[in-house]
Amino acid sequence: MTTLHPYIAGMGSALPGEPVTNAALGAALGIDEEWVDIFVGTRTRHFAWDLATGDVHHTLADLCAEAAGEAVDAAGLDAADIEFLVLATATPDALLPTTATEVADRLGLNYLPVYQLQSGCSGAVQGVDLARSLIAGGSRAGLVIGGDTTHRHLDAGREARRLPGDELVNYVLFGDGAGAAVLTAEPLGEAVAVRGVLNHFTGLGRPAGQRMDWYGRGGDDPGRPMISEDYKAIEDNVPTMAAEILWELLDRLGWRESDVDFLLPPQLSGRMTERITERLGLAVREISCVADTGNTGNALPFLQLEKLLPELAPGQRALAIAVESSKWIKSGLGLQKTGEAAS
Amino acid sequence: MTTLHPYIAGMGSALPGEPVTNAALGAALGIDEEWVDIFVGTRTRHFAWDLATGDVHHTLADLCAEAAGEAVDAAGLDAADIEFLVLATATPDALLPTTATEVADRLGLNYLPVYQLQSGCSGAVQGVDLARSLIAGGSRAGLVIGGDTTHRHLDAGREARRLPGDELVNYVLFGDGAGAAVLTAEPLGEAVAVRGVLNHFTGLGRPAGQRMDWYGRGGDDPGRPMISEDYKAIEDNVPTMAAEILWELLDRLGWRESDVDFLLPPQLSGRMTERITERLGLAVREISCVADTGNTGNALPFLQLEKLLPELAPGQRALAIAVESSKWIKSGLGLQKTGEAAS
Repeated sequence: MTTLHPYIAGMGSALPGEPVTNAALGAALGIDEEWVDIFVGTRTRHFAWDLATGDVHHTLADLCAEAAGEAVDAAGLDAADIEFLVLATATPDALLPTTATEVADRLGLNYLPVYQLQSGCSGAVQGVDLARSLIAGGSRAGLVIGGDTTHRHLDAGREARRLPGDELVNYVLFGDGAGAAVLTAEPLGEAVAVRGVLNHFTGLGRPAGQRMDWYGRGGDDPGRPMISEDYKAIEDNVPTMAAEILWELLDRLGWRESDVDFLLPPQLSGRMTERITERLGLAVREISCVADTGNTGNALPFLQLEKLLPELAPGQRALAIAVESSKWIKSGLGLQKTGEAAS
Repeated sequence: MTTLHPYIAGMGSALPGEPVTNAALGAALGIDEEWVDIFVGTRTRHFAWDLATGDVHHTLADLCAEAAGEAVDAAGLDAADIEFLVLATATPDALLPTTATEVADRLGLNYLPVYQLQSGCSGAVQGVDLARSLIAGGSRAGLVIGGDTTHRHLDAGREARRLPGDELVNYVLFGDGAGAAVLTAEPLGEAVAVRGVLNHFTGLGRPAGQRMDWYGRGGDDPGRPMISEDYKAIEDNVPTMAAEILWELLDRLGWRESDVDFLLPPQLSGRMTERITERLGLAVREISCVADTGNTGNALPFLQLEKLLPELAPGQRALAIAVESSKWIKSGLGLQKTGEAAS
């Protein structure tokens, strides 16, 4: 962790269409909506595809370009000020061209480095960490975007009614969306300093907790689900890892627990988030969105940050924690609003 | 471009199985091998799958871990010295966990940032550029890996004989492989300084020249080929872009044409490489490998660099040029072996 602090200057987000309620989802899947309420704890989510027809009405590029455009406007900047673009996703629209280059084109960007990170729940933090390095290397402003869509992995119309429980849970856990932040070398716009970043792979010798496949034409292994989770491993590991991230971040930042005003906990599901915040036991305000958006993967920390910004007073501090259970990446951010705290 | 120069300390590569000749490929596809010789200019390539059965005998993680292990050994370092890992690919084994994290696990790495870039022919340079930023931010040594496999996009056994020409060409253009470099803050091992990097998206308002899709189970659009190229756009644009990269790199490096000892040109195909080097018209030694390996995407610049190293004498300089035609990324490296030139 270097001592340079880039700043979050502005944020944006995009959630496709109307929220899909548990009642609507339950009816489409032929499952009991109370099961979703109680065991998952997610109330609504947005899908970039139509639950009835499967038609895709928003691509990932659509969502990311909308979120990124909002972030540039919120920062009070123009496209010409943006010197790099980083997009993190697990579910790009295509392998090539990258969704990142499509988004750059739509925003009117040219002659700049454009990176697309393949990542899961840690992608937003990985993107901020990469932006920190690029700003340390001399860039003045850049975009970090995260987003995911589910239409190739969930397929409610065609076969959900026949799915086993461990596949069905993916239909109620996940949602589609994108979020974006403009990071700057100098305080601009919202002027929230990124005081520290934790971004550590910790999967040595540990089987993956989540797997998402992609297929060629026809699929290579029709017997295997495209997404699968080891929920036992996730339930066992994620709360502990979240606590470790909290303590590692505090240690690196030189902050005490009592210095923290807001916590942005991992957002695997509404219910898991409750368990994690209980375990962390911080007496601070929690900023979560998973109950309204579902698990939107690479978008989530940006959606939480966007909710945080209007609440964060000058001098106040926040910790964001994200755990990638695919192969156990620990990630987190320490943030502080610039300016003097009111006395 | 900052003034910090990281160093290439060691390199490695992995090509799966025996080379597949045009005769063998022609027999499998039911096409004339002379057509491949004359129009494509590639003599052999390696496939990570069996041409007769389609069985995959090497994953991308297998190839990348082998190349990366070699690079660490060649640099004279241990896994414990590696402070970051960047892997660039268009064709990860799965969406999650990333191939980068699988490779980190196999190499015995833990507690470090692991980035996977989604990229095409510019991926190796993007990875080196990212490594440069991470080294500028304080890292002392890290791995950059590039690789691709073709088994989900090519399917010789099952349907190649019925393929139209514009799809068939993909079977003779591409090959599987991986390459890796250890980059360091101080000169170690091979001690080749990365004097400059060009890494610019230039696709604003330009349709993509190449498209690679991924599908869910069953495929979403069985009528559309999974890889498609606009060869007219590629033939029109790539030689010009290669020349522009050459001049932009020389300008940024403050080098004259006569300062350059070696050229590593783009490796789309043997024939395109000939046309590009003719167009560039530099009176220097050319280092190419595409005729032996086929277009291995993100691996290619590493395979060329590995061929370059034993040839590069102290003080000598090389330029590597890569064009990503998916959405027109210009990329290139300026390299110089440390030490005094012999007089």
